[in-house]
Amino acid sequence: MLATVIHAARDIRVETVPDPVLSTGGDAIVRVVAACVCGSDLWPYRGVTPTDEPHRIGHEFVGVVEAVGDDVSLIEVGDFVIAPFYVCDNTCVNCRNGVSTSCLNGGWWGSDDRLGGFADAGQGERVRVPLADGTLVPVREEVTADMVPGLLTLSDVMGTGHHAAVSAGVQPGDSVVVVGDGAVGLCAVIAAKRLGATTIIAMSRHADRQELARAFGATHIVAERGDDGVAAVKALTEGIGADRVLECVGTKESMDQAIRSARPGGMVGYVGVPNGGPELPVRALFGRNVGVNGGVAPVRGYIEELLPDVLSGAIEPGRVFDLKLPLVEAAEAYAAMDERRAVKVMLQP
Amino acid sequence: MLATVIHAARDIRVETVPDPVLSTGGDAIVRVVAACVCGSDLWPYRGVTPTDEPHRIGHEFVGVVEAVGDDVSLIEVGDFVIAPFYVCDNTCVNCRNGVSTSCLNGGWWGSDDRLGGFADAGQGERVRVPLADGTLVPVREEVTADMVPGLLTLSDVMGTGHHAAVSAGVQPGDSVVVVGDGAVGLCAVIAAKRLGATTIIAMSRHADRQELARAFGATHIVAERGDDGVAAVKALTEGIGADRVLECVGTKESMDQAIRSARPGGMVGYVGVPNGGPELPVRALFGRNVGVNGGVAPVRGYIEELLPDVLSGAIEPGRVFDLKLPLVEAAEAYAAMDERRAVKVMLQP
Repeated sequence: MLATVIHAARDIRVETVPDPVLSTGGDAIVRVVAACVCGSDLWPYRGVTPTDEPHRIGHEFVGVVEAVGDDVSLIEVGDFVIAPFYVCDNTCVNCRNGVSTSCLNGGWWGSDDRLGGFADAGQGERVRVPLADGTLVPVREEVTADMVPGLLTLSDVMGTGHHAAVSAGVQPGDSVVVVGDGAVGLCAVIAAKRLGATTIIAMSRHADRQELARAFGATHIVAERGDDGVAAVKALTEGIGADRVLECVGTKESMDQAIRSARPGGMVGYVGVPNGGPELPVRALFGRNVGVNGGVAPVRGYIEELLPDVLSGAIEPGRVFDLKLPLVEAAEAYAAMDERRAVKVMLQP
Repeated sequence: MLATVIHAARDIRVETVPDPVLSTGGDAIVRVVAACVCGSDLWPYRGVTPTDEPHRIGHEFVGVVEAVGDDVSLIEVGDFVIAPFYVCDNTCVNCRNGVSTSCLNGGWWGSDDRLGGFADAGQGERVRVPLADGTLVPVREEVTADMVPGLLTLSDVMGTGHHAAVSAGVQPGDSVVVVGDGAVGLCAVIAAKRLGATTIIAMSRHADRQELARAFGATHIVAERGDDGVAAVKALTEGIGADRVLECVGTKESMDQAIRSARPGGMVGYVGVPNGGPELPVRALFGRNVGVNGGVAPVRGYIEELLPDVLSGAIEPGRVFDLKLPLVEAAEAYAAMDERRAVKVMLQP
């Protein structure tokens, strides 16, 4: 089958690789209907994280189940399934606590896996899914082509934006700032509105993303950054800052922007993968009672909650996909996101 | 009148200073019944923070109102009052948000104050209280001598321990670790039990404090620190760490201990004044979804909630005072706490 392999920075190739096979009784084989490129995939693409040897890449996909192992009971051949960006059993104590990204038995796509050997990555024609009963969520109604983008966002970006909002404790009536206008930030706007925030300030400097943020529920746009950005937020929030801030980038600058945009007693929900490990300024947090909560989003646990709203059209996160390419053009997908020609690219085998 | 003045590290003197007078219509004059020494007072005492010139010290006291300004309406002459460790109006947007330590009009004891000039500190015979209606909480029943220690803890340590528990989100049934066995840590044990925690692990190496922690509700004591301490906590919490961790020290080591003692998805509530500004390791927090919330405790807003339980004896935070001295022996009070001969010292004019 074909799958995407990264060889080095800016060297993305679609190559013929071995077809996946059932390796344990808990596996499923999924034929990928759509996959996508994640902002975090750009780190090895840009060389921010090194690529020591060629390896498979991708971790967001939806597809149709082609085969299941003998121990699989919740997933059936023919199911349309959503895969979160990681593998989990959905039964261990961490999964039960809502932190399936810390599953005691789980793992990551595209890595060597304790559960039956190599786990495929998402940007390919097929994927072996370990722990299929825990990992996959079936969509048990007819899935048409126009529904695929929205469902695909539940594999990562919509659930991640939701996690930022949940981690920040967004409540009805809150004022919320979203730092970051990538796909996750835009989904965080959706999540904030869905949870009842009434003032939603999207920090964005790109006209097309501003427009999408407004369509998703942003009530205000702040294009300024740094001190000017903080001042603009305070001018919209009784002079004190926002109740909740959703940090969806992961740089030192964006976290600083987020912390300073929160009011005393406010909470920053952060989901941007920390780029280079910026440390948090504890005295600045302490003096103003600003909390920081979040992390790698346990999206598996959010899929069932968000799925009905995606199916009904109450939320439309699929609109973040502004470019759709065939799988064989994966290299162009990465380039388009790297050069900010696209917010989010969908790949279809 | 007499009041405590710090001249330099380890140089605490009780001196004659000007009697306070009503300076604004919102002031009250309070005759101090009891004050105490705070762990944070030990920082200038030890020279960790410099003392550039002699200044008044102390910020925890209870007393009786002797005079009020024309604009005071909620406090009456003769009231027994509890003063939080700061001044606040209790009406501004930050106070209404529960963060009265960030009061837009407030200030700190013993510092120059926008509200009518110098604000006395707590370790003296009398105190001018600006914003008396907002700052002071009256106890409108007869206060006997044995009630004073418990009421005095509401000026700081009991409310601060409670803030750690509230910031960490302690819920009924939770497992809670308390890092720090000073007065705040011991009060945090009380707070965790009061909020329904069922497993309460006090980290303490001192037999007398271990005993008090058990009396306050600790179900387990962990004397180990570092890796061994984390392992001991995990052995008591299904192998994953505690739901909530209350950090009541403020050093880099104690915060590290706290973060590593939390389970994936857990929350650290921290109230230890950050000593030297240890930064928070964001990648370690991110990977395990451990949140950090807290800060300088807005105890003013907790007094009404906690007061009934203190008056009824349902909680006995006054037991943290293991040494009581006359005000003129303030220097010995500091030495006793510095040398860990006392957990918490009460001073009586």
